[in-house]
Amino acid sequence: MSLPASVRDDASAIETHLERLFDGMTGPATRLSDAMRYATMNGGKRLRGCLVLAAARLANDGDLPDGAMNVASSVECLHAYSLIHDDLPAMDDSDTRRGKPSCHIAFDEATAILAGDALQTVAFDLLAMPATHADGMVRAALVLALAGAAGLDGMAGGQMLDLEAESRVMSLDEVRRMQAMKTGALIQYAAAAGGIHAGAEADLQTALELYARDLGLAFQIADDLLDYDGDAALLGKPAGQDADRGKASFVALMGLEPARQAAAQLIDGAEAALAPWGTAADPLCFIARFAIERRS
Amino acid sequence: MSLPASVRDDASAIETHLERLFDGMTGPATRLSDAMRYATMNGGKRLRGCLVLAAARLANDGDLPDGAMNVASSVECLHAYSLIHDDLPAMDDSDTRRGKPSCHIAFDEATAILAGDALQTVAFDLLAMPATHADGMVRAALVLALAGAAGLDGMAGGQMLDLEAESRVMSLDEVRRMQAMKTGALIQYAAAAGGIHAGAEADLQTALELYARDLGLAFQIADDLLDYDGDAALLGKPAGQDADRGKASFVALMGLEPARQAAAQLIDGAEAALAPWGTAADPLCFIARFAIERRS
Repeated sequence: MSLPASVRDDASAIETHLERLFDGMTGPATRLSDAMRYATMNGGKRLRGCLVLAAARLANDGDLPDGAMNVASSVECLHAYSLIHDDLPAMDDSDTRRGKPSCHIAFDEATAILAGDALQTVAFDLLAMPATHADGMVRAALVLALAGAAGLDGMAGGQMLDLEAESRVMSLDEVRRMQAMKTGALIQYAAAAGGIHAGAEADLQTALELYARDLGLAFQIADDLLDYDGDAALLGKPAGQDADRGKASFVALMGLEPARQAAAQLIDGAEAALAPWGTAADPLCFIARFAIERRS
Repeated sequence: MSLPASVRDDASAIETHLERLFDGMTGPATRLSDAMRYATMNGGKRLRGCLVLAAARLANDGDLPDGAMNVASSVECLHAYSLIHDDLPAMDDSDTRRGKPSCHIAFDEATAILAGDALQTVAFDLLAMPATHADGMVRAALVLALAGAAGLDGMAGGQMLDLEAESRVMSLDEVRRMQAMKTGALIQYAAAAGGIHAGAEADLQTALELYARDLGLAFQIADDLLDYDGDAALLGKPAGQDADRGKASFVALMGLEPARQAAAQLIDGAEAALAPWGTAADPLCFIARFAIERRS
């Protein structure tokens, strides 16, 4: 399954926006900006950024609001930072990412740590810029929402729980909570941020968050399924790597077929949340379907 | 030399505020919040936080504006994050910090990386909270200013240049630029943030930034002097450590006595910038003097 043209166009627009962002980094720490660019421009699908744009358009009668591209680029920088740090020897110790050397292999460990650090900073910088939204309240709300998704009770805390899980057995509920923090929070943020930026009505904002909560969980189940039976060449990392390391996964705890069914049901739920918006919500529904039917 | 009571009172108020912040972290990733607390509550002098409070008071007719304590705590969290990551084996490889085991020794490397990551997030979170300032524009401006000081063209970029300097000789101008980014930017931000938060008039805002630019450079020269002839027990790390690693320093490039004189002249300049505000600027002048006369 491939994404529809509208979503692919958004992904390449984000790509162009990010390229320009890195082109503008002309300060003296060139090795650092090179590493930041290398790790961000790595052939990612930009699903989180596309979620921001699709949600913002839905909340703005089909038009993309000015500045939304900064919000989309911000979440991609935050995501890139998390991948750099996850790959470090002290964390998941992955030498490759999308078939290319990880940042700490292409550069070195110190540079990779700093590149992740500085990309997190860029993410907040992009949200706070006057060009992102005329209303400072909206910019501050976006910063607050991203901080909630990225920090102790979100992505960073989820990664901590994931690392701790290597030394003990987790229940399905614990895995669900860990994944909701590690992966789900940023996906949920992305859809919510599009709504916040575009000033969505309360009922749409709630629907976007329900949609993204289900999508986030389905996304992680799909990742576990890919790790179980994915194609290493497409994944860009050895399939089965997580299972081999004894990491708790939905597939291991639920079984293969029940995991597939759970992912499909979650996507049904995500689509149902947006049903009142009819075909205007199609791009978000495409992204949701794609999230569980992708092969890498 | 010790700090006057008013500044010491500010430092303990920041300490209490940070304690409460960590007490409120009750999520599941307890190992991570423990590491964040350990690294932040480490007996630091809270000079950056005190700069925020002193500058905010000066801009607000002597009274501390509501929410300024969040701004002071935010810069301390950002500073704590930078120390955790600087101490990592891949960076400066320091096993101790203020006489206690560094975060990656007390916990482990993965936890320390995540603790730094999550403390950076907390710093932005604190600035964006409605409780920090009623006006979202002010909160967004604070986020933008911190991002500028912390990222590629500030602290993170300066650390990159510092690491690169281990393998080649830097000129005095290069060291000055590197230190302005690595240490100066956050000190300059701290004084500026107090003014931004309190809505300082343009002339005071400019004076605060001039004051802090000189202070930041003097602070780093004083650090180099301490590394050269400081007392290891007071420093909490071996004196001469940086010099032994061949790191470029002001003392090595300027000589001991000229470095001392340069620091003193910079502090004279910092004080002169605030002269039009008379005794109301005394706390900021005390902090500046203390920065170069401290013994640890």
